[in-house]
Amino acid sequence: MPRYALKIEYDGAPFCGWQRQTSDPSVQGAIEAALAKLEPRGHTIGAAGRTDAGVHALGQVAHCDMDKTWDAFRLSEALNFHLKPAPVSIVACVQVADDWHARFSALERRYLFRLVNRRAPLVLEAGKVWQVSQKLDGAAMQAGADRLLGHHDFTTFRSTVCQADSPMRTLDGLDIEQVARSDGAQEFRFHVRARSFLHNQVRSFVGTLERVGAGAWTRDDVSAALNARDRTACGPVCPPHGLYLASVGYPEDPFA
Amino acid sequence: MPRYALKIEYDGAPFCGWQRQTSDPSVQGAIEAALAKLEPRGHTIGAAGRTDAGVHALGQVAHCDMDKTWDAFRLSEALNFHLKPAPVSIVACVQVADDWHARFSALERRYLFRLVNRRAPLVLEAGKVWQVSQKLDGAAMQAGADRLLGHHDFTTFRSTVCQADSPMRTLDGLDIEQVARSDGAQEFRFHVRARSFLHNQVRSFVGTLERVGAGAWTRDDVSAALNARDRTACGPVCPPHGLYLASVGYPEDPFA
Repeated sequence: MPRYALKIEYDGAPFCGWQRQTSDPSVQGAIEAALAKLEPRGHTIGAAGRTDAGVHALGQVAHCDMDKTWDAFRLSEALNFHLKPAPVSIVACVQVADDWHARFSALERRYLFRLVNRRAPLVLEAGKVWQVSQKLDGAAMQAGADRLLGHHDFTTFRSTVCQADSPMRTLDGLDIEQVARSDGAQEFRFHVRARSFLHNQVRSFVGTLERVGAGAWTRDDVSAALNARDRTACGPVCPPHGLYLASVGYPEDPFA
Repeated sequence: MPRYALKIEYDGAPFCGWQRQTSDPSVQGAIEAALAKLEPRGHTIGAAGRTDAGVHALGQVAHCDMDKTWDAFRLSEALNFHLKPAPVSIVACVQVADDWHARFSALERRYLFRLVNRRAPLVLEAGKVWQVSQKLDGAAMQAGADRLLGHHDFTTFRSTVCQADSPMRTLDGLDIEQVARSDGAQEFRFHVRARSFLHNQVRSFVGTLERVGAGAWTRDDVSAALNARDRTACGPVCPPHGLYLASVGYPEDPFA
């Protein structure tokens, strides 16, 4: 069966998350239903990252196995036709080797978190960024973020329902980009990179670092929370709607 | 009566436009209703630009007259409270002179039009940009735009229902910025400046220039359309949802 890699953009708002559920709408379910319009049978696709309810994607990656050989561009066009009006878009599609796997072949996941520091309600970006009214100190947040880099037991920063066998992970990057906006407000873009993440890890990081930016926590408090290896030591978990699965790294970029 | 200038951001999608109508929801009506919560009586506010149905604003400007003297920040906070859940936000508020007028004191209106050149549906920016699948030539569009600069009879580029006395206007700027996006697509941002605009003028410009970018029109066709002084010579009027009233220029910026 020919295998295809799909690069997927979606708005997470109407979905219970990536993963198919029996009752609630999921991104996986929407794409599998579109595949069933093309080849009527059950389809099961796997993705590089199982995003939570409300989390968006700019470059989620999944793969699907088809009965017949499709021209990759035609396959993406047909899927986009059948996905409407769901806010899910196949932005790239390529045939890959039969043993290529969206999840197991991935070497790195990259997340983006958008936080806008403004008092007046953000009506044009509602649901797309986390709005924080209180003035935040970007340098302080970056100093706190630096304490999280490297190989650690991240028990503090994972959900109590996380199903990963081990809380050990290596955080390869947590860079906070400051963007001056045309409305005069500051936007903080958290660029977070790791081979893999624990459940709620990025939102636990950002929620904790926001406390540092607000002056309620110090960078030493971040280190102490990490060293506690205790979920109750975490700062508040921030909302999902500022979070985007930005891209996935493979030994060779299948979409290049 | 103390007078206040309001800088306003809004998502135009749910509104019939800026201007109050008897039956349909308008931005003006939403703000006047919020003002009536603060000082219960009829309110009538004037704005610098009367945007059409579906057109957004980053920096619309209006003024209101109040019975009592308000702290300007408190007034904006109270309005934002009463505006919810309408996608309208007062982003700045200042007291101004009694004879200051949002419309008549304005020296320049600046519009932004966002066009994204991509094939796959744009699900995260749906309703916020005009998506065009066909590949566009930015340099050709700019060459066409340059033919529109200056003082002209813009009959070709105004709606047949335009109520302005004269079709003469001076176009001071039409700069097309090309932005490379993280998804690999090109975005074209049309920055359009004039003292005042005719009805549908910006959308008539962008719709016509898109034809130039697609290679269906030449820059000489743009000049010929302008010189025809005939509405039927215009290219297709583009949709409203990529258009933003970006800012308004005054002799002195009241919000500075």
